Amino acid sequence: MPVGYTQLPELLPVAGVRLASVAAGVRYAERNDMVVMELAEHSQCAAVFTRNAFCAAPVIVARQHLQQTAPRYFLINSGNANAGTGVPGLAAARRCCVALAEVAACNAVEVLPFSTGVIGEQLPVERMEAVMGPALQQLSAQGWSEAAHAIMTTDTVAKGLSRTIRLEDHSLTVTGMVKGAGMIRPDMATMLAYIATDAKLDRDVLQQLLEQAVEGSFNRITVDGDTSTNDACVLVATGAAGNAPLRPGSEAYDIFAAVIGDVCRQLAQLIVRDAEGASKFVTVNVRGGRDREECLQVAYTVAHSPLVKTAMFASDPNWGRILAAVGRAGLEQLQIDSIRMYLGEVCIVRDGGVDPDYREQDGQQVMSRDEIHLRIELGRGDAAEQLWTSDLSHEYVRINAEYRS
Amino acid sequence: MPVGYTQLPELLPVAGVRLASVAAGVRYAERNDMVVMELAEHSQCAAVFTRNAFCAAPVIVARQHLQQTAPRYFLINSGNANAGTGVPGLAAARRCCVALAEVAACNAVEVLPFSTGVIGEQLPVERMEAVMGPALQQLSAQGWSEAAHAIMTTDTVAKGLSRTIRLEDHSLTVTGMVKGAGMIRPDMATMLAYIATDAKLDRDVLQQLLEQAVEGSFNRITVDGDTSTNDACVLVATGAAGNAPLRPGSEAYDIFAAVIGDVCRQLAQLIVRDAEGASKFVTVNVRGGRDREECLQVAYTVAHSPLVKTAMFASDPNWGRILAAVGRAGLEQLQIDSIRMYLGEVCIVRDGGVDPDYREQDGQQVMSRDEIHLRIELGRGDAAEQLWTSDLSHEYVRINAEYRS
Repeated sequence: MPVGYTQLPELLPVAGVRLASVAAGVRYAERNDMVVMELAEHSQCAAVFTRNAFCAAPVIVARQHLQQTAPRYFLINSGNANAGTGVPGLAAARRCCVALAEVAACNAVEVLPFSTGVIGEQLPVERMEAVMGPALQQLSAQGWSEAAHAIMTTDTVAKGLSRTIRLEDHSLTVTGMVKGAGMIRPDMATMLAYIATDAKLDRDVLQQLLEQAVEGSFNRITVDGDTSTNDACVLVATGAAGNAPLRPGSEAYDIFAAVIGDVCRQLAQLIVRDAEGASKFVTVNVRGGRDREECLQVAYTVAHSPLVKTAMFASDPNWGRILAAVGRAGLEQLQIDSIRMYLGEVCIVRDGGVDPDYREQDGQQVMSRDEIHLRIELGRGDAAEQLWTSDLSHEYVRINAEYRS
Repeated sequence: MPVGYTQLPELLPVAGVRLASVAAGVRYAERNDMVVMELAEHSQCAAVFTRNAFCAAPVIVARQHLQQTAPRYFLINSGNANAGTGVPGLAAARRCCVALAEVAACNAVEVLPFSTGVIGEQLPVERMEAVMGPALQQLSAQGWSEAAHAIMTTDTVAKGLSRTIRLEDHSLTVTGMVKGAGMIRPDMATMLAYIATDAKLDRDVLQQLLEQAVEGSFNRITVDGDTSTNDACVLVATGAAGNAPLRPGSEAYDIFAAVIGDVCRQLAQLIVRDAEGASKFVTVNVRGGRDREECLQVAYTVAHSPLVKTAMFASDPNWGRILAAVGRAGLEQLQIDSIRMYLGEVCIVRDGGVDPDYREQDGQQVMSRDEIHLRIELGRGDAAEQLWTSDLSHEYVRINAEYRS
């Protein structure tokens, strides 16, 4: 069960976007595992992809296609990542695009492929080709919820949300869906995230907006420190709402950007809430650093520490492990004496040791919650950063020791 | 049960070193938890300590004392790390030294304190003081084995070994003991390691020798990536063997240095074999890097990946996870196509994908072993490095979720 999230809310249609989910039998039996997402003509598309040097075939192909033209279709499959598949894998990703383009009567470069699932197995292209015709016939503006389910792998729940805003006499909709629960430490993007709006924005503006939003959301979560080979986050603006293009510098743009930032942050947090084996949703907030980079360095070191993560799982206010992680984060001239640490509202560390007023039962009470807020004050500057992570449980080991079998 | 190690072998006395183990009741009932180690006059002592900015009180005091004079006594306790204890913790460490010095009729600066165990609780100095007299009366050259047991915390087995060599008509002995199973990614030293020899070496030579040996041993192991607050590794040379001082540049020194290097490597590996919850002993060997630093970067990224570690636990030849870890290690211009990966003697990856000749059962067979050798060839240079690590098991989570309770 995810932490603080029970089920997919209603996902609102976005004018100009239609989706279809079908069962191709890529890996799973008796469930949908392939999604076709259609974008209206003149839609703009921004995207960010994994920085893992070992990136999957669909990531390579999607990047190439995006450079050439604006996409009309996304082809997404779960169950197989088409990563580590060498030259045949690249050919398979391209062949999928060609096949869909033929049925949809568009160019292959107007199709972006996305895959998620097991690494190192060849994609069963024929099985996917066989259901492309039916998929195109089922396209529907109502297809978001089904699609959010079809892209799941080790996710325990479908994840997405919608927002509407009224801006300069136009009602705008933003709907996003995301999948991911393991191999999560996005570096430019998370596993797979699709966000669409009917607002009108220019391509460059859209890309800049996405990159900023991702920086404060998908690039601030970590489950296991393992950056995926297939990370991709896409933001589509169909322009169907008929507004004048939103441009930076205007109040309308700022409001809209805040909404996109918020949607991205919530989607990113949903991944952590549904992280493999997670029983806790942990916010690591680091303040008082010399710059944001060192705050992040401390936050990630704490968030990746297996000793901190198992203590979180055990609801154990084991601040010694947290302080030890801070100490090894590699900050120069770090003065442990100036550090303060808070669990929720409880001050637990000051002056290099436990706070004299700290009582174990107070820390225990915070740690027993599902959602834990950890604040570390470095006391050496004005910078601050935060990220979100999960704990390390028996269930995490079980899931990851059994995943391929 | 440790991997490939069942019990402590006979530890040979080192002329000039006597040890005593007593039960001070620091934390554990009915077991020895305090060790006094006495060094003969004119012994030389080299040491390296943790680089964790948050280092424990005994580390601070031991460093200060070492700068002032050659030590005559080590005072070691298990059950309490005296870390995160602020000003009172520093006072406690100093008071222990003063108390032992009074009973032993030496100066307090001639005592080095070492602590290991729970972080953040004040050291029960009185209980330790109460058994210092009895400890000094029990000092014995035969005390190594008992001491190796007394310094254990989450270790499941006492760890140590002895070597003798004949060098220029002198028989030299090297005996070492070590403790540590968790919070292991030494950075200059591991949890606690004590190595003594009756050979004669000058202080500077000894320090240089230790630093070199540590670099290829304790600084090449990782269990959980968590550098301890209390890491210390000490090398004592009593000179009781009567040899002329061993000096760099001589054949005798080279032979001796090789033995010390080997002892350190074996002790370091014992920590990994007894790592918390370990069911596998994994060697990660990275070759073909541009420099040793990038080889280590890849090796540590692989060794710290929870996804790789859980796959190891499951005996799953999940090379996709390993390759994904290599890909996110941060190497510039890394060409995945030039990477080769071997599990034992089995080539599993080449040309960016699975080796066409690879058969799953071959990889499976290697992974089912207790000791796994993983070789990653980067194909972009001549540098190589290796390190040793363990897997991530249910037992690891159990141990670390329950440790304080």
